[in-house]
Amino acid sequence: MEKINLQEKLSLFQEHWSPKIVGELNGQHVKLAKLKGEFIWHHHELEDELFWVLKGTLKMEFRDKTVLIHENEFLIVPRGVEHRPVAEEEVSVLLFEPASTLNTGNTQNEFTKDHLDRI
Amino acid sequence: MEKINLQEKLSLFQEHWSPKIVGELNGQHVKLAKLKGEFIWHHHELEDELFWVLKGTLKMEFRDKTVLIHENEFLIVPRGVEHRPVAEEEVSVLLFEPASTLNTGNTQNEFTKDHLDRI
Repeated sequence: MEKINLQEKLSLFQEHWSPKIVGELNGQHVKLAKLKGEFIWHHHELEDELFWVLKGTLKMEFRDKTVLIHENEFLIVPRGVEHRPVAEEEVSVLLFEPASTLNTGNTQNEFTKDHLDRI
Repeated sequence: MEKINLQEKLSLFQEHWSPKIVGELNGQHVKLAKLKGEFIWHHHELEDELFWVLKGTLKMEFRDKTVLIHENEFLIVPRGVEHRPVAEEEVSVLLFEPASTLNTGNTQNEFTKDHLDRI
């Protein structure tokens, strides 16, 4: 049972679109990720997903609107809702989501990470 | 589907030891709380609980050790583990835990909140 320091964990990796597991509780994972550029359109069949911006501004595109998420703001994307994260500059985010969540949801492509490291 | 600004939500209440629900996903609640003083010893039979310090320093007492949680740090308290949060100065925290979680866990007392407001 150790506390987690977010800045320390963020300093341990540089790669984009590669979430790292930093905590687990009640079948959910707490993950950190650095994002830059455009991700792919996808949705999650069974998982709601929380995006919390720690640094930078994340643009979350939906089919009918776009939401800008700034530092110290979070957005919950409900299951089934198509979305595409876009980071014009590098963004650091924390994710809360079920341990079963695949980063690219219903799609499989070069962004898909079948295995996530714990840091 | 609206983003949540943490500072804005924190400005909406002042009371201590009274968590407010600010998000829900996958059967879990995201809550904000302001803490000051000593809480009671308790544990949660079935729920792991995440404490994330947004402002101040939270002292989490366990039967065999004490952990100081500073800003931008979090600690996961596993189910079954007795703990007592202590805030010498006011602390703002975000909690992530199952919707079923009672704030005083296995105990019932003047701190118990059977109903939590959504803000």
